[in-house]
Amino acid sequence: MTKIKDIKCRLFKVPLPEVLNDAKHGDHTHFELITTTITLEDGSQGTGYSYTGGKGGHAIKAMVEHDLTPALLGQSGEDIDGIYDLLEWHIHYVGRGGIASFAISTVDIALWDIKCKKAGQPLWKMAGGHNNKCKAYRGGIDLQFPLPKLLDNMKSYLEAGFNAVKIKIGRENLQEDLDRIKAVREFVGEDITFMVDANYSMSREKAIEASKAFEQYNILWFEEPTIPDDYLGYGIIAEATKVPLAMGENLHTIHEFEYAFEQAKLGFIQPDASNCGGITGWLKAAQLAKKYGIPACSHGMQELHVSLVSAQENSGWLEVHSFPIDEYTTRPLQIEDHLAVAPDAPGTGVEFDWTKLQPYEVGAAVLTGDKPLQI
Amino acid sequence: MTKIKDIKCRLFKVPLPEVLNDAKHGDHTHFELITTTITLEDGSQGTGYSYTGGKGGHAIKAMVEHDLTPALLGQSGEDIDGIYDLLEWHIHYVGRGGIASFAISTVDIALWDIKCKKAGQPLWKMAGGHNNKCKAYRGGIDLQFPLPKLLDNMKSYLEAGFNAVKIKIGRENLQEDLDRIKAVREFVGEDITFMVDANYSMSREKAIEASKAFEQYNILWFEEPTIPDDYLGYGIIAEATKVPLAMGENLHTIHEFEYAFEQAKLGFIQPDASNCGGITGWLKAAQLAKKYGIPACSHGMQELHVSLVSAQENSGWLEVHSFPIDEYTTRPLQIEDHLAVAPDAPGTGVEFDWTKLQPYEVGAAVLTGDKPLQI
Ligand SMILES: [Mg+2]
Ligand SMILES: [Mg+2]
Repeated sequence: MTKIKDIKCRLFKVPLPEVLNDAKHGDHTHFELITTTITLEDGSQGTGYSYTGGKGGHAIKAMVEHDLTPALLGQSGEDIDGIYDLLEWHIHYVGRGGIASFAISTVDIALWDIKCKKAGQPLWKMAGGHNNKCKAYRGGIDLQFPLPKLLDNMKSYLEAGFNAVKIKIGRENLQEDLDRIKAVREFVGEDITFMVDANYSMSREKAIEASKAFEQYNILWFEEPTIPDDYLGYGIIAEATKVPLAMGENLHTIHEFEYAFEQAKLGFIQPDASNCGGITGWLKAAQLAKKYGIPACSHGMQELHVSLVSAQENSGWLEVHSFPIDEYTTRPLQIEDHLAVAPDAPGTGVEFDWTKLQPYEVGAAVLTGDKPLQI
Repeated sequence: MTKIKDIKCRLFKVPLPEVLNDAKHGDHTHFELITTTITLEDGSQGTGYSYTGGKGGHAIKAMVEHDLTPALLGQSGEDIDGIYDLLEWHIHYVGRGGIASFAISTVDIALWDIKCKKAGQPLWKMAGGHNNKCKAYRGGIDLQFPLPKLLDNMKSYLEAGFNAVKIKIGRENLQEDLDRIKAVREFVGEDITFMVDANYSMSREKAIEASKAFEQYNILWFEEPTIPDDYLGYGIIAEATKVPLAMGENLHTIHEFEYAFEQAKLGFIQPDASNCGGITGWLKAAQLAKKYGIPACSHGMQELHVSLVSAQENSGWLEVHSFPIDEYTTRPLQIEDHLAVAPDAPGTGVEFDWTKLQPYEVGAAVLTGDKPLQI
């Protein structure tokens, strides 16, 4: 076994080019990027990461540094499943979702990066190998964009090579949502795949009313109509309507996915490796999805998920998110013939441009008050 | 309205007199105490807190300081429900349980402290008012204690005035658990109430086998037989056995409590105000329990829960935990005629002895790397 020798966690607050808004998260002015770089005693090195919409980054970093690192140093850096289990139990009392899932994700992705590099293989081969390409759609955080700007946005997506687009819904009046959906459908034409995302802003009743009104616009999925905790509510909405439901970005443990598959009657699942336990957690969710006959999609960080979504037999749609994490890497996402192409370099294929990130680093705290335990 | 002017969060690592051990958390050498003191612009002040078994404290503090504080300053310190909702949505993406629930708990308890002080009322009156006393039991973290020491422990509990005791189970072989249960039952006699706690270490199948074997020893409840996420599994265990099930210390959102009440067929619920959204979260869980005809018990921090458990019509059992937080307050828990007595002082009735805590303070970080956003 090759022991873990060093762990370095960094936090960056990266400004967005403009303020973005959705139904439940308010204004996004920047995203947080939390990177964890792990070095084994043989010198091999990998980097994992997570991101947030602006809150929680300090807590994630604190958990990696103070809780995970002491448990990890000296462990076998090759035993990914063993470390996944170790960490789950190690922080169980304060964990099972939330910050813990984000923190564990950064470690897990770093270990996968090392594993793939050592094997000289790209992630898409190591994580299933089914394909190196997948369907992709461009998702906007555009709830408050005036209509002309919303349509301009759609234009830019099509010009960038996408044949599938998603917009935010959940404005105060349902009619506003319907007007925007109608305008986008007319603008992009019938051949473009079109999804909508309410960011869990609706009641069960409103979601049912909304979904029925969406039907005529040929919507591929209705994402997060209501709070992610309400699995049974999703099931009720699904039974009452025809547009398939999608969720997953807010499910943080395999148990939450199990309940979603059992009770929520989903058409699509969208796990995010940055918040559901890394690549190990994402693959668990995708494999469970396969059992239920559900396509495995993704949320956020397209530069990594492109390899995971491509690699599955039940490959769904890659979300190309409005947080441009990939612009801070050496290989931004590539689209060919409307498909996203996974990197072929050994490792996760995500290498950060640290020089570009440097100006946005925060939380490089100097601990001065830490006293040894007086036992 | 009276605005929130200042928020100060502190982290303490308090050593335990001896190493304590249970089935799933490993060795406890100390507990973490996270205090949040809130000052309103009229000078009124309250302190809330949370605790952990040794992991997560830094992350909780980081979330209070970096994510909650900016959202709280300037808000009305009297609008507890409004702030509860505000914070839930504010950190939703990295929240819904885990560290976020602990962090919000510290804020919520501080605001309740202020509310009770301003009203000149003790917490038990403001949180229901049903009674100022409740049933209490002493719970050990004693899984690895040799039998003579385990029985010595029981002796000390009875001498301290308790007529109800709980031990940890979940040793490698079920027979070991049964031997210890038999010995404790014989030692304490038939009149003492007796519970067992497996800290979710068993499979559904093993839990059913174990519960059937416990029956002859008159066990009041079987706590956390299996992982808290497996609500349906609890239901299956409950259907197959006679000893009532208890859980709640690992449920962090009202949605988790809803699923537990609907699906887990519990005999007792044990929410912990330090990790389920503070006093507001605890009361939501207790009120929901009442609807289901389930007694509201508690987990940990007896010095605060004594007021909450006493105040409910569906008052259950107060756990008197082995983390001696109350020894670092000015009023350790009082037991009279086997009942725990809630404090009558205005506020939560929990005042920390800061001088006694001081030697254990950690994480007083000096942030040097924080750069303003360059937007
Ligand atoms: Mg979404
Ligand atoms: Mg317990």
